Amino acid sequence: MYRVCCVCSYDGTLFYGYQKQDNLRTVQEEIENVLSKIHKKDTKIYSSGRTDALVHAEGMVFHFDTNLKINEENFIMAMNSQLPSDIYINELVYVDSDFHARFSSKAKEYHYLIDTNEYNPLHRNYRYYYNNPKFNISLMKEASKVFVGTHDFKSFTKNKDMENTIRTVFSLEISEKYGLITVRIIGDGFLHHMVRIIVAMLLEAGCGNYTPNDLKAIMEAKDRKFAPVIVPACGLYLKRVYY
Amino acid sequence: MYRVCCVCSYDGTLFYGYQKQDNLRTVQEEIENVLSKIHKKDTKIYSSGRTDALVHAEGMVFHFDTNLKINEENFIMAMNSQLPSDIYINELVYVDSDFHARFSSKAKEYHYLIDTNEYNPLHRNYRYYYNNPKFNISLMKEASKVFVGTHDFKSFTKNKDMENTIRTVFSLEISEKYGLITVRIIGDGFLHHMVRIIVAMLLEAGCGNYTPNDLKAIMEAKDRKFAPVIVPACGLYLKRVYY
Repeated sequence: MYRVCCVCSYDGTLFYGYQKQDNLRTVQEEIENVLSKIHKKDTKIYSSGRTDALVHAEGMVFHFDTNLKINEENFIMAMNSQLPSDIYINELVYVDSDFHARFSSKAKEYHYLIDTNEYNPLHRNYRYYYNNPKFNISLMKEASKVFVGTHDFKSFTKNKDMENTIRTVFSLEISEKYGLITVRIIGDGFLHHMVRIIVAMLLEAGCGNYTPNDLKAIMEAKDRKFAPVIVPACGLYLKRVYY
Repeated sequence: MYRVCCVCSYDGTLFYGYQKQDNLRTVQEEIENVLSKIHKKDTKIYSSGRTDALVHAEGMVFHFDTNLKINEENFIMAMNSQLPSDIYINELVYVDSDFHARFSSKAKEYHYLIDTNEYNPLHRNYRYYYNNPKFNISLMKEASKVFVGTHDFKSFTKNKDMENTIRTVFSLEISEKYGLITVRIIGDGFLHHMVRIIVAMLLEAGCGNYTPNDLKAIMEAKDRKFAPVIVPACGLYLKRVYY
């Protein structure tokens, strides 16, 4: 058996998220269907993680095992020619058998797009339209420093169970061009809804509703009830998984 | 009665075009439904023209007559709050009763987007992905000059009936940035499929399959059979109507 690693992109609009679910269209199922056809037997893929419904990816990574040893370009072509138009395989390589898309990953990069311009229906599934006259990007940037480093992010996740909620955010950058704000966040891993809750709290901070010290206190409280906001899924992109 | 003129945007992906059709979702019907609710009676709109299924607009113009004389900002808000998320009214003004969205228009501007980069599923409904190793944008630009001016465009339209096929193209500009080619065309009016057939022929010319003289001969032949290609609707945008 050989192990194959793929990097793929998808438009999350018409998916109920990455992970397979009964009777719902998911990215995992579409890819497994194509690979099962190519292999003429059930073939399972293992991804670097999941994305929620409506979330996009331009660098999701997964691996699978195969008995086929074919030219990588031909393998990609065989997959892309059968995948629906909202999924695309960008890269495919044979890797060592100890590579694991999830356990070998060192970091992930997400982007979140906030459009402060007039609403444009052409971008409605790809950006969060946000317009608050009180909003000041300098305040947002100042507040973002609170989240960089190793912290217990329990206040900033939907998860209620007892798993370890300590994560390291390596960088959090906010830039703006023609009214389009891009938040770039890189970390060793992200809890469920963590990026979207942090971005929502940063927008609140940009409006003066929380100071950096307030955010630190919320971090220490380890309770989601102090961070009760979230931005829509459609503005979120998994951009890269680092190995 | 007062006459109102609107400028609107829409994502053409989920519409069977602009013009009302039985049992199919159209832009005209969605807007008329909202206006009929606001007026509590059937209200018809008159547009500057039609767009085909999947074609987008960021500057479609229409007018309608109303007995309401309300603040223009409130009128826009009343419409946008009830329209589906893939249509948006950008401007609304009361105009003279002799204004007509179609008959008063002097020119229209369309853009067509061609992406020569690797396929990205996130843009699949908004650009035409085109990749031909023979393609040379200089040849395409050279060929584009053939279409500027007043000509009989009978070879470059789907229409088979006897209507007047003479049109004036005021300008046709082609620019490229990071592999994304934008064709901007302004004319006094466009025949059915004319922009998409011209763009398809220009791509062929860019591959060396037609010289500017070939295109001139095709123009003179006044027969669509010599221009048998067309680019997909999803790359086309109605950008502006001039009055």
